[in-house]
Amino acid sequence: MKNMKWIAVDWGTSKLRIWAMDEFGQVLAEVRADDGMAGLNQNDYEKVLLSHISGWLTDEVTPVIACGMVGSRQGWFEAPYAKVPTKAAAKYVNVDIADRRFSLSIVSGVMQSHKADVMRGEETQISGFLVGQPNFEGVICLPGTHSKWVQIEAGEIKQFQTAMTGEIFGLLSQKSVLRHSQGSWSDEAFKQAFEDIYNAPENALSSLFSIRAQDLLNGDGHGVARLSGSLIASEFAGMKHYWQGQTPVLIGAGELVRLYQLGFELLDLEVKALRAAPLTMAGLHRVYEEVNL
Amino acid sequence: MKNMKWIAVDWGTSKLRIWAMDEFGQVLAEVRADDGMAGLNQNDYEKVLLSHISGWLTDEVTPVIACGMVGSRQGWFEAPYAKVPTKAAAKYVNVDIADRRFSLSIVSGVMQSHKADVMRGEETQISGFLVGQPNFEGVICLPGTHSKWVQIEAGEIKQFQTAMTGEIFGLLSQKSVLRHSQGSWSDEAFKQAFEDIYNAPENALSSLFSIRAQDLLNGDGHGVARLSGSLIASEFAGMKHYWQGQTPVLIGAGELVRLYQLGFELLDLEVKALRAAPLTMAGLHRVYEEVNL
Repeated sequence: MKNMKWIAVDWGTSKLRIWAMDEFGQVLAEVRADDGMAGLNQNDYEKVLLSHISGWLTDEVTPVIACGMVGSRQGWFEAPYAKVPTKAAAKYVNVDIADRRFSLSIVSGVMQSHKADVMRGEETQISGFLVGQPNFEGVICLPGTHSKWVQIEAGEIKQFQTAMTGEIFGLLSQKSVLRHSQGSWSDEAFKQAFEDIYNAPENALSSLFSIRAQDLLNGDGHGVARLSGSLIASEFAGMKHYWQGQTPVLIGAGELVRLYQLGFELLDLEVKALRAAPLTMAGLHRVYEEVNL
Repeated sequence: MKNMKWIAVDWGTSKLRIWAMDEFGQVLAEVRADDGMAGLNQNDYEKVLLSHISGWLTDEVTPVIACGMVGSRQGWFEAPYAKVPTKAAAKYVNVDIADRRFSLSIVSGVMQSHKADVMRGEETQISGFLVGQPNFEGVICLPGTHSKWVQIEAGEIKQFQTAMTGEIFGLLSQKSVLRHSQGSWSDEAFKQAFEDIYNAPENALSSLFSIRAQDLLNGDGHGVARLSGSLIASEFAGMKHYWQGQTPVLIGAGELVRLYQLGFELLDLEVKALRAAPLTMAGLHRVYEEVNL
């Protein structure tokens, strides 16, 4: 592929995204696949990657820069965590591979010993965000299956915390007794549940069964929105030390990020959201430039 | 079976227990089976019950008194809820059945419109408890997949609330990312997690991922106890309006009830636990006496 200088890879637990990039970090081609880490053995990675990119490769060695769970112990090759405080995506490992047509570098995740926590992938989005706003100080929230709240200070990740709200929502809405009472979406029901739990967060767990009971007795048709509002409000209450007195930046897109924006609105904070993929590419591009020095 | 006057049945979502009873409410024989409601169609119930009791039946009509999910809409026959405030297990329905060797009465569950909630089965345990302590006023806690907290006043169920803590624990410990970090039990880890969350219940959900991270980074081997302590503490925090200023009675047995006792101990409350099965039989016996009048 003409002008392709390197390949960017975001390889997570369930999804794989690959971009052919020019030297300026512009996308020439994109691949999306479901070949996530969860379904792969360690020996599968090179084969899977080649199945998607071999058509792009030439006689020259093309640098491949990857981030995400691909660098975990269960991934292709373990890229040891950087420790907070640390610049985002400042650390990476070069991996020996069999094929001579590409080189591979995997970005390290970030860990925190005090208040133990880990991230893999988000550090690259944060790095990409800081490329555009190098003087940013404050809080970044990255909603997802495992949401991250990250405090940036002096250009570094100072501390962060993960909430597994998305995963809990998935289990309760699909596998618990509440699955019988999901009904249809309603912003009003979401907001009401958010306010109820935000104002009395000690009720977060003990109030969940009322979603089922209210539906059984009164045919409440918005259990899914009440569940979502309750869980996200509980996350906001527990993360108050991150966002209070701040104007956080949201990284992400789609319905989930809209709900976090709704939550912030209820707290009188107008919060902007940035799409994650361009930030991932920008973060990987910075690593590419370093690798290519 | 000589001296058998009636049959007591506790038919829940996953379990079926049947007792052959004499006229004084003493047990002559017992059956335990996994024929819970979850695996049955409406037409199966009579067949399943007969498969267990036909050997006990005679030419005389034996009264069968049943409680639990067998009386739900998805059960054998819907026994409409009694509404709070109500005496426990004061309402039942007589069901027409094909077989002439037994009669069937199903105890109604209890519902609450304001702060919507429902119970089916626990009302019979409560009724049995009140047979022995008719002047009891205060709070009864019945730990389980769906725990119930019940306020008794003037011999009636005044109000109650359900927490689906047990179900949430099951899902998170078996189906979430925390399943990789369950480790082994530790009372100390349970107590620490209980105190952490009880004192800051707004962290109940947002702190759960730390169980995974702490195990990944430090090899903490007691995730199961930390998860259990966190969730039960969250329930206690949300149910404070029930137990505060009270000396609750626990109904139940086994490890789960021991953990609720541990929780109460940490709150400086010494709480007695009563086994559920004898109370269920006593509650069903009271209904038998009424049916048999």
